Amino acid sequence: MQLGMIGLGRMGANIVRRIVKHGHTAVGYERKPHHIEELGAELGESFRGSTDLNEFVSMLDTPRVVWVMIPAGATGAVIDQLAEVLEPGDIIIDGGNSRYHEDIKRAAALKPKGIHYIDIGTSGGVFGLTRGYCLMIGGEAEQVAYLDPLLKSIAPGVEAAPRTPGRTGEPTPAEQGYLHCGPAGAGHFVKMVHNGIEYGAMAAYAEGMNILHKANYGSQQSGEFSAEETPLEHPEYYRYDIDVPEVTELWRRGSVVASWLLDLTAEALHADPNLDSFGGRVSDSGEGRWTVDAAIDTGVPAPVLSAALFARFSSRGEALYADKVLSAMRKAFGGHHELPK
Amino acid sequence: MQLGMIGLGRMGANIVRRIVKHGHTAVGYERKPHHIEELGAELGESFRGSTDLNEFVSMLDTPRVVWVMIPAGATGAVIDQLAEVLEPGDIIIDGGNSRYHEDIKRAAALKPKGIHYIDIGTSGGVFGLTRGYCLMIGGEAEQVAYLDPLLKSIAPGVEAAPRTPGRTGEPTPAEQGYLHCGPAGAGHFVKMVHNGIEYGAMAAYAEGMNILHKANYGSQQSGEFSAEETPLEHPEYYRYDIDVPEVTELWRRGSVVASWLLDLTAEALHADPNLDSFGGRVSDSGEGRWTVDAAIDTGVPAPVLSAALFARFSSRGEALYADKVLSAMRKAFGGHHELPK
Amino acid sequence: MQLGMIGLGRMGANIVRRIVKHGHTAVGYERKPHHIEELGAELGESFRGSTDLNEFVSMLDTPRVVWVMIPAGATGAVIDQLAEVLEPGDIIIDGGNSRYHEDIKRAAALKPKGIHYIDIGTSGGVFGLTRGYCLMIGGEAEQVAYLDPLLKSIAPGVEAAPRTPGRTGEPTPAEQGYLHCGPAGAGHFVKMVHNGIEYGAMAAYAEGMNILHKANYGSQQSGEFSAEETPLEHPEYYRYDIDVPEVTELWRRGSVVASWLLDLTAEALHADPNLDSFGGRVSDSGEGRWTVDAAIDTGVPAPVLSAALFARFSSRGEALYADKVLSAMRKAFGGHHELPK
Amino acid sequence: MQLGMIGLGRMGANIVRRIVKHGHTAVGYERKPHHIEELGAELGESFRGSTDLNEFVSMLDTPRVVWVMIPAGATGAVIDQLAEVLEPGDIIIDGGNSRYHEDIKRAAALKPKGIHYIDIGTSGGVFGLTRGYCLMIGGEAEQVAYLDPLLKSIAPGVEAAPRTPGRTGEPTPAEQGYLHCGPAGAGHFVKMVHNGIEYGAMAAYAEGMNILHKANYGSQQSGEFSAEETPLEHPEYYRYDIDVPEVTELWRRGSVVASWLLDLTAEALHADPNLDSFGGRVSDSGEGRWTVDAAIDTGVPAPVLSAALFARFSSRGEALYADKVLSAMRKAFGGHHELPK
Repeated sequence: MQLGMIGLGRMGANIVRRIVKHGHTAVGYERKPHHIEELGAELGESFRGSTDLNEFVSMLDTPRVVWVMIPAGATGAVIDQLAEVLEPGDIIIDGGNSRYHEDIKRAAALKPKGIHYIDIGTSGGVFGLTRGYCLMIGGEAEQVAYLDPLLKSIAPGVEAAPRTPGRTGEPTPAEQGYLHCGPAGAGHFVKMVHNGIEYGAMAAYAEGMNILHKANYGSQQSGEFSAEETPLEHPEYYRYDIDVPEVTELWRRGSVVASWLLDLTAEALHADPNLDSFGGRVSDSGEGRWTVDAAIDTGVPAPVLSAALFARFSSRGEALYADKVLSAMRKAFGGHHELPK
Repeated sequence: MQLGMIGLGRMGANIVRRIVKHGHTAVGYERKPHHIEELGAELGESFRGSTDLNEFVSMLDTPRVVWVMIPAGATGAVIDQLAEVLEPGDIIIDGGNSRYHEDIKRAAALKPKGIHYIDIGTSGGVFGLTRGYCLMIGGEAEQVAYLDPLLKSIAPGVEAAPRTPGRTGEPTPAEQGYLHCGPAGAGHFVKMVHNGIEYGAMAAYAEGMNILHKANYGSQQSGEFSAEETPLEHPEYYRYDIDVPEVTELWRRGSVVASWLLDLTAEALHADPNLDSFGGRVSDSGEGRWTVDAAIDTGVPAPVLSAALFARFSSRGEALYADKVLSAMRKAFGGHHELPK
Repeated sequence: MQLGMIGLGRMGANIVRRIVKHGHTAVGYERKPHHIEELGAELGESFRGSTDLNEFVSMLDTPRVVWVMIPAGATGAVIDQLAEVLEPGDIIIDGGNSRYHEDIKRAAALKPKGIHYIDIGTSGGVFGLTRGYCLMIGGEAEQVAYLDPLLKSIAPGVEAAPRTPGRTGEPTPAEQGYLHCGPAGAGHFVKMVHNGIEYGAMAAYAEGMNILHKANYGSQQSGEFSAEETPLEHPEYYRYDIDVPEVTELWRRGSVVASWLLDLTAEALHADPNLDSFGGRVSDSGEGRWTVDAAIDTGVPAPVLSAALFARFSSRGEALYADKVLSAMRKAFGGHHELPK
Repeated sequence: MQLGMIGLGRMGANIVRRIVKHGHTAVGYERKPHHIEELGAELGESFRGSTDLNEFVSMLDTPRVVWVMIPAGATGAVIDQLAEVLEPGDIIIDGGNSRYHEDIKRAAALKPKGIHYIDIGTSGGVFGLTRGYCLMIGGEAEQVAYLDPLLKSIAPGVEAAPRTPGRTGEPTPAEQGYLHCGPAGAGHFVKMVHNGIEYGAMAAYAEGMNILHKANYGSQQSGEFSAEETPLEHPEYYRYDIDVPEVTELWRRGSVVASWLLDLTAEALHADPNLDSFGGRVSDSGEGRWTVDAAIDTGVPAPVLSAALFARFSSRGEALYADKVLSAMRKAFGGHHELPK
């Protein structure tokens, strides 16, 4: 089967590599010619490409399958261009990180032209080429079924994890790492929630590791305290010098918190035990925010996911004004002065 | 009635002033003689004092009433000293910020000697002299009743707030601003929860004011975003230049969030509209921590009070290690780099 | 000055009463004739009304001032109708609980017609008639200035609270309880954040009171524990039988957490000490949600306000599915069985 | 090497089975004789046991190694008994779920007798027999080294997970699934934090799954709303009928949130797709509470771990009083009535 890929950055190129490895062919579009040349040299006859969108479209078999894999901010404009040159029956896939609201709007806008729209939330990060990508798919069932051979080759496959006890027979698509989640937007919706969970789980590890990191606090107590600090009631309970990198390695085997995130954490801490290469300003790329928005819209309590999100905001200094307000209040009612830094 | 006061700092001296104003007399103990001299000059015959503990004790009528009003960390040692020199029937009051656990232990230790122990949580801050102190009292009912004339004169009095609709007849002690809350420790327990609530309410104002402060965020958007920042879907919704000091003044009249804390906040913001005199490192003095500890012990959900507490910890940089862990994870699975400061 | 009021429910009628008391006149529109008749009987010549929108409009002096005070869900349709019959220079005020997004859209839609749009967030609840309403106002400065006589008479007035120390001279509008916060939507934006704070402060009190309510937990411990319950390490610390209604009354005087919300809480608990008339299903009317949405959009940490919001969702059973997931996980990895109810 | 095991419940028996499989021998103590008989029948000469503690002790080679694997509440009394009959040089291991405070006290109490105390936090749940147990160990280095052959055989071994990139040479103990974390209590301290993280990660999944579960909320909107409910601004964004069990299966392969907890969740949802066998009352066994206590003591922000803990409390109805307070407040200031159930 043939796939058209718009955007040959790391993600786009790796998806092309995976499908070619499984016997499919690809046509690529990229503004930078060297990306096309390099991929062509690597993949041989299975890959062709163009720096011209019209030429790219003309190189595709019909019905055309065009996967757009570019930054979310640029996706809308490219889809508008595609809408001008594609034909009824063609399929556009947005494999990037669009908000699912956009999917709903785009699918509705393309429908009168007979162009089908599929949204795919893609997880796997920098390891997707070798591990395969977990695909969360939204759109019409007929087109998702049509794309099945491609999707199956991009996904990790059933052997990527031990089969769940109780599951028998032919593995379902979900067991192979891809799933048609529902109509337009459902793929990005499920991916959004996936990332929301990711934020929460990451914060759980980070907070726990911070407690381990601080476990020697009782040894650092001076015994002299101002009214602005709370002395430890039991300093003897906090005299541990925990080797946090080794603990994360430890938990990888046999513990309840074993996970891929923990694997990566253990690796990162082995390479940089004191995390000296980081400043602690944690970005967020939108999905965590949108997950909490969705929770609020539907009346679902999300205290953990929101706390994780807000901790990222705070890491970037965004609580400063609120903190100054607190200090001002404390001074006003209690005459308290802030501790120097 | 006569009150012995140990510690003539701001709080101790002001309590002495309030009882003297109501016709009582006081005897003070302080290591610094000038405190005693100054208060004597101000209060005349109604006040005497000593820098010697034994002399101080000898100046008191029996049964002696000794109010200890010194930093929590020093209170235990002074009470131990008093236990040596007081007699059966005497009363020790801890009016400071001890953890209520201590009260329970001290009352039990003093009981065999016949010395009574009363704990009083005292709220009112720097305004207590004029507004009166809200008194939360723990100990034996008989001794609390005995102290009633003193307690009544320290408390704000019923006229400090409009009477609650539905309440008639002789005002209860609670309506006058003092309350026997239960046996030893009950006073500091209620005061502890009071402060826990205070943390939560303060944080509610501070977070809301931070949102107002940031309401012009849509005007500051460059339109150029990296993958590490989430662009606003609707920048047009965030183009307000809110005058936060005036808003806090506004809410003092007729709004649901009117409060004494808001009064003080409005005053602080009027004096320093940009809060330039604050760095945003917010201390905590223990009660907020102990409140959450109590919630955890008794299985009570306290998501708001704990979030307020943790925000103070974060304001002092205590999340840094956790934040670095998050950055390390993000780099590991997604190749994300931290934004520069 | 003359005010046209659409909607003569409790809020609309009380605002009319306040302006008439200050010497203004009002024209009302209501579908139910008896509302008009009753208000006419009460207010005499100062009030006229109609059940017909066109007649109502014809009864207004130009430039017409039309205050819409109806449920947020119905406001849009009424403003659309008004847009058809009003003339350039007329002023529409939305005094209800619209989301400020709507204000921005409506002001833009009305601008080409020369009709001015003012949004007013109104706080004061059932007490507004006597206390006055705190008014948060958005719109063009010229029209807000024109409306000043009306706004001043609806607001509580400077005497509603002691003047903030440091403020001198002619009281600002904020000191009188009304404030022009910015362009269209700014009034409802500030009101939204006000309610967000309200949610947080309410939750702070409620959590603290729950801890007091549970303070006798140590007396209820059976001493027999299953693996599914955590025994108290120190049951002796939780043997208090706190009179929560009296504590709320106590805190009204001299304490740091004194507030109007606390006044109302003390009143409610005096009338119903065990809160038997409540089931604990707590509604939310939107502003708390939108406040957290705004925090997320602008990257402001709001852990307290969001925790308060989510506690309301949970009070309505919305955590149930998540809780079942947790129980399923616990059974899966640890063989734990749920405790019976 | 020989191990004495007190308590032959599931955990104790499985640890015995693992060491016997690795060529060690075991002596068991249990009050119920059938446990001993059954294990003897299964393990043959490698296992002997007694229902009498003194006999059990007499069957052990010196220095004796006695692993206590019984409910935390009963551990203290058994250790006290052992202290009477063991000799200098013997080693007591607490492999249960004691709070680490106890370890510190017990180690200090046993030291004068020359008896060594080792605390081991053991993770692995019902799967430990086959997967091995992750062991977090506290105590003196010399004794931990002495026990190495036993510990190694109980732990999962290095092959239980792919080796972390960058690690070379002889695998460290942590890579094999056991780690000497520090002096007395360090094992249970690290295990405590492990469980705290577990609570947070579990809640992250549960909240995310609840959002997926509620994703069809827009289809259920009646269009008629009271003032007590917030209508969806965009019901069209919530019209997904997500198959949550399939999504959890999907995420097991290639996604960032793949984990052992997710494996178990997918299995549980496959067996009971609607979670009908659960009521949603989630227990907690102490470690989550103690983790938050430790965070508070050391000033570490733990908003996620605490939110996860409090959600469990709420699942058991513990927020009810607070919720009633909120309803009482809302009625008082706004005349709001609670929605019926």
